[in-house]
Amino acid sequence: MSRDLPALVEGAREGRVRAIARLISLVEDGAPEVPALMAELASTSGRSHTIGITGSPGVGKSTITSSLITALRSRGERIGVLAVDPSSPFSGGALLGDRIRMQQHATDEGVFIRSMASRGHLGGLAATTPQVLRVLDAAGCDAVLIETVGVGQSEVEVAAAADTTLVLVAPGMGDSIQAAKAGILEIGDIFVVNKADRDGADATVRELRNMIALGDAPDRGWKPPVIRTVASTGEGVDTLLAAIDDHQAWLVASGELASRRVRRARDEVEALAVAILRRRLEAGAGSERLTAAAEDVVTGRVDPHTAAARLVSEA
Amino acid sequence: MSRDLPALVEGAREGRVRAIARLISLVEDGAPEVPALMAELASTSGRSHTIGITGSPGVGKSTITSSLITALRSRGERIGVLAVDPSSPFSGGALLGDRIRMQQHATDEGVFIRSMASRGHLGGLAATTPQVLRVLDAAGCDAVLIETVGVGQSEVEVAAAADTTLVLVAPGMGDSIQAAKAGILEIGDIFVVNKADRDGADATVRELRNMIALGDAPDRGWKPPVIRTVASTGEGVDTLLAAIDDHQAWLVASGELASRRVRRARDEVEALAVAILRRRLEAGAGSERLTAAAEDVVTGRVDPHTAAARLVSEA
Repeated sequence: MSRDLPALVEGAREGRVRAIARLISLVEDGAPEVPALMAELASTSGRSHTIGITGSPGVGKSTITSSLITALRSRGERIGVLAVDPSSPFSGGALLGDRIRMQQHATDEGVFIRSMASRGHLGGLAATTPQVLRVLDAAGCDAVLIETVGVGQSEVEVAAAADTTLVLVAPGMGDSIQAAKAGILEIGDIFVVNKADRDGADATVRELRNMIALGDAPDRGWKPPVIRTVASTGEGVDTLLAAIDDHQAWLVASGELASRRVRRARDEVEALAVAILRRRLEAGAGSERLTAAAEDVVTGRVDPHTAAARLVSEA
Repeated sequence: MSRDLPALVEGAREGRVRAIARLISLVEDGAPEVPALMAELASTSGRSHTIGITGSPGVGKSTITSSLITALRSRGERIGVLAVDPSSPFSGGALLGDRIRMQQHATDEGVFIRSMASRGHLGGLAATTPQVLRVLDAAGCDAVLIETVGVGQSEVEVAAAADTTLVLVAPGMGDSIQAAKAGILEIGDIFVVNKADRDGADATVRELRNMIALGDAPDRGWKPPVIRTVASTGEGVDTLLAAIDDHQAWLVASGELASRRVRRARDEVEALAVAILRRRLEAGAGSERLTAAAEDVVTGRVDPHTAAARLVSEA
C-alpha cells in the first residue's frame, strides 16, 4: 500500500475523488503511512479556508451548509465538506428532504463530501481533522466546510480546526441559552439565527447581541455579527457569505490567521505527542517498563510520580 | 508548607481528621508536595478495601452508602467515604432527608467523609483517586466507599479504582437497560436492585440475571450476584455486606486483587505520565519547543508526526 502513496498523492493533487477518499481513509484508520503522507503534504498546506458550522440538531446546519456550497460553487470555488455528525445527511442518516437537497452536490465534481466518525483515531479529532484538512488542501479545495453537531466536546475540537466558526441558533426554544451553557458561544466568529421567519427571531437576535456585547464572546478585535437566514428559501445566505468573506479578510489583515494556525498546529502536535506516548507505553518494551513500574508502585518501592516522570523521560 | 509534610503524615497516620483533610486537599490541588507525599506513603499502601457505589441519580446510592457505613462501623471498622458526585448529600447538595441521615456519620470519629470534584486535577480522577485512597489507607481506613453518579466517564474511572464495584439499579423505568447502554454493567462486581419493595423489582432482577448469564458482564471467575435491598428500611443490607465480604475473599484467594492493583497502578502511572508530558509541553522550554515545532508544521518544514515524536523523545 505504501508503494501507492506517491500515486495517491499525485491523484489527489489532480483532484481525483477516489484518490482523495483513499487518503482520508488512511488518515482515519491511523494507517502506518500517515506520517509519510503528512510529510509529503507538509509543503503544500494552508491554502484553503476552513469554515466550521455548528449548532443543535434541527437548527438547520445541513440546509445552511448546502446553501453555502451552492453560493461558493457559483464563484467557481472547489469545496470540501466534512460532516462530523452521525445524524447529518452527509453521513447518510438523514431526512428525505435533506437527502434530496444533497443530491445536487453529490454529482458535482467540484464538491468533495466526506462524513467522519468522531472516535477511535490516534489523538482524536484534534489530531485527525487537521490531517484530513491537509489532504483536502492538497486536493485544491478553496473552502472546506466542517459540519458538527453542537453537543459534547467534538464541536469545540472541530471549531479549533476552523478558520471561521459559524454558530447556528433557531428562534425560541432557549437555543441561545443552551449554546451559552454548552460553551459554544465562545467559539463563534459569526452567529446565524436561522429560520428567522419564525416567531421569536427578533428576541433571539437581541439576546445574542446582548451576550456578545456583555463579553460572553471573547474580544479578539473581531465583533461577531449576528446574521438572519431562512436557509430553506436562501434568504440571508448572501449576507452570511459576505460576513464569512469579511472574517477571512480580517483574519489575514490582523495576523490572526497565522497565529490561529500556529495555535492549531500546537494542539495537533500536542495531541499526537500524547497519543505517541500512550502507544509507546502500551506496547512492546514500553509496556513492560510500565508494568514493572506499576508493580513497584504497588509494593511501595517507588511513588507513582517518580515512576511516571521516569517513563516520560525514557519514552 | 513542605516542612509540615512529615507532621501532616504523622497526624494522618494517627487518624487526625484535619491532617487527613489537609493531605487530601494537597492531592486535589496538585500541590508541588504531592510527589514527596506519595513517596512518603508508598510503603504503607494497600491495606484498605475500596468499594465503588455507582448508579443513576435517584436510585438510592447515598442511602445504601449510609447503611453500609452503619453496618461496617458496627464491626468496628474505620471508614472513608469519597463522594464523586456533585448532587450527593456528602457533597452538600442534598435533600433534607438525606442530609439528616448523613448527620449521624458526620459526628462519628471513625468515619471520614470527603467530597471530590471530578475535574481539573493533574491526570484527572484516574490519577487523583488512587492518591486520595493512599492517604485514607495510611490513615487506617479498613474500608473506603466511593460514591459516583452513574453518568459519563467518571464512574468508569472510579470503578477502576475500586476493589469491589456495586452497580445500583431501581425497579422499572428501564434502569438496567440504561445501565447497559452506559456501559456500567461491565464494571459491576455486585448488582443491587434497591427499592425492591416497588413494582417491577422481580422483572428487574430477572433482567439483570439474564444480562449477566448472557455474558454482558465479563467472566473473570466471579459471577456477579444480584441483591435486593430496601435501603431506607435496612432490608437486604446484611446480605449485601455478606456479598461484599465474599467478593473480597474471592479477590484475595484468586489472586485477582493483586492483578487488579497492578492494573490500576498501570492506569495511574500512565495517566500521570500523560499529564507530566502535557505539563512539560505547556510550560518553559518545552512550550517553546512545541511552538517552534508548530511553526515548522505550519510552514511545512516538518510533518506533525515527526515533530510530535521528537518532542516525546526530548521530553
